[in-house]
Amino acid sequence: MRTVWLNGEFLPETEARVPIFDRGLLFAQGVYEVTPVIDGRFCNWAHHSARLTRSMALARIADETDWPVVLNGLIERNQLTEGRIYLQVTGGAPADRDFLSPLDPVAPTRFAFSQAAPVVDQPKAREGLKVILHPEGRWALRQAKTTQLLYAVLAKEAAREAGVDDAWLVDDGFITEATSANAHIIDARGVLVSHPVDHGVLPGVTRLSVLPIAREMGLMVEERAFSVEELFAAREAFVSSASALVLPVVEVDGKPIGNGGPGTLTSELRRRYVERLRTA
Amino acid sequence: MRTVWLNGEFLPETEARVPIFDRGLLFAQGVYEVTPVIDGRFCNWAHHSARLTRSMALARIADETDWPVVLNGLIERNQLTEGRIYLQVTGGAPADRDFLSPLDPVAPTRFAFSQAAPVVDQPKAREGLKVILHPEGRWALRQAKTTQLLYAVLAKEAAREAGVDDAWLVDDGFITEATSANAHIIDARGVLVSHPVDHGVLPGVTRLSVLPIAREMGLMVEERAFSVEELFAAREAFVSSASALVLPVVEVDGKPIGNGGPGTLTSELRRRYVERLRTA
Repeated sequence: MRTVWLNGEFLPETEARVPIFDRGLLFAQGVYEVTPVIDGRFCNWAHHSARLTRSMALARIADETDWPVVLNGLIERNQLTEGRIYLQVTGGAPADRDFLSPLDPVAPTRFAFSQAAPVVDQPKAREGLKVILHPEGRWALRQAKTTQLLYAVLAKEAAREAGVDDAWLVDDGFITEATSANAHIIDARGVLVSHPVDHGVLPGVTRLSVLPIAREMGLMVEERAFSVEELFAAREAFVSSASALVLPVVEVDGKPIGNGGPGTLTSELRRRYVERLRTA
Repeated sequence: MRTVWLNGEFLPETEARVPIFDRGLLFAQGVYEVTPVIDGRFCNWAHHSARLTRSMALARIADETDWPVVLNGLIERNQLTEGRIYLQVTGGAPADRDFLSPLDPVAPTRFAFSQAAPVVDQPKAREGLKVILHPEGRWALRQAKTTQLLYAVLAKEAAREAGVDDAWLVDDGFITEATSANAHIIDARGVLVSHPVDHGVLPGVTRLSVLPIAREMGLMVEERAFSVEELFAAREAFVSSASALVLPVVEVDGKPIGNGGPGTLTSELRRRYVERLRTA
């Protein structure tokens, strides 16, 4: 049985419960982060912490949890060597439901749990992901990592029904994101093209590391939206996220990308990023 | 202390808790309804039930709770004569977090609670509401009543900061909805104009009753989006919802609508709708 963390206490996973009046449950006023754990250490905390702070400000949630203590406590108690840690902060649980937060603020609800999973050695790194295109329909404030995730759930379910791994979201002919990862291509010219993170997509922590690594490899990087046509003409396509790290995309809507196998540059990007995480 | 209902049990409100792994909390995979209670009876159940069924289908939630038994149980145990009942159904609480629902389905989480509040005699029916205009930024699937409500929360907070009651959302120059109510005008010609509910706004249960009442009063009704310009030129403006029933809007962005007081036709609509609820 896992040990999880809730509002200051480590406790068995089956005992961690929140009131039905929690604003996370009633209004999806919740923000979260997922950090990879490799070799028993959590990664990229400075970036995750900075983004959590920004997400909380947007969602009007105030909290000052000392998360590194929590994350280390979860890793130790669960003897986690590889996987990830999920943490969430909500607007808390007032005594009754009201769209407006109480004028006398309630304490935020905070919880975290670990998930053991292969991070470095994932079969999909060798096989590549197959994806479908799906209309973008999420809300406007996608720069914040909030729990408004039903659209992503529905798009992933559509992908499962199509027999593939994930969906890439299309807004007016351009790719915004995968359902829970940033989307990138290496185009016909050999240029890495990645949606800018000022609006419309989540500023990925993994993306923050991967673009500089690409530049170190001598790749040109253009931060701009790319079209569906550019995607189908690309040499390589890949996603980046805390859970996937970097994973190649080999097929979109049944059509191969490049030669239909994981891209060489994508594989090298993944290799270098894993090395960076291990030695950071 | 209120008695609430959770997954088949009536229990004290402070004891109703759900696991942190609930898909309502992690992914906002939750749908809900709010029914007014007047004279100790809940109203419009056939319409609320039909919409709940549609929302559940969209959110991929399966449930067959006998809600009237629950609602009557809450009314009786809490001696509720006037107010509302909130109910929610989520995707349930699997053992771990995954965007995809488990292939072996888990039971949905279901809960409900009552709120005592004046419904018929609301001061705002005499004073009218003041609202601000706010950019529309919600997700695309607004025909379902889901818990993706953070955008509405933020818009209501913006209204509170502006010293007014609510926000009306503007998409490309046209009004979609209030943050938690349908928005309507009676335009300069005396025609009731109301956003169609096929896309982009919630099919309001109150709206379903109010438009026919308007026709009975001899008003022409046009179901189409109206522009910000039409709003400012309108004779009357009002909202409809389960909590508000029908409430006049007398000021938008600091400018009066009509003569700056509650509209005569709006007040008559409200009067007739309350009468309908009481005698249904």
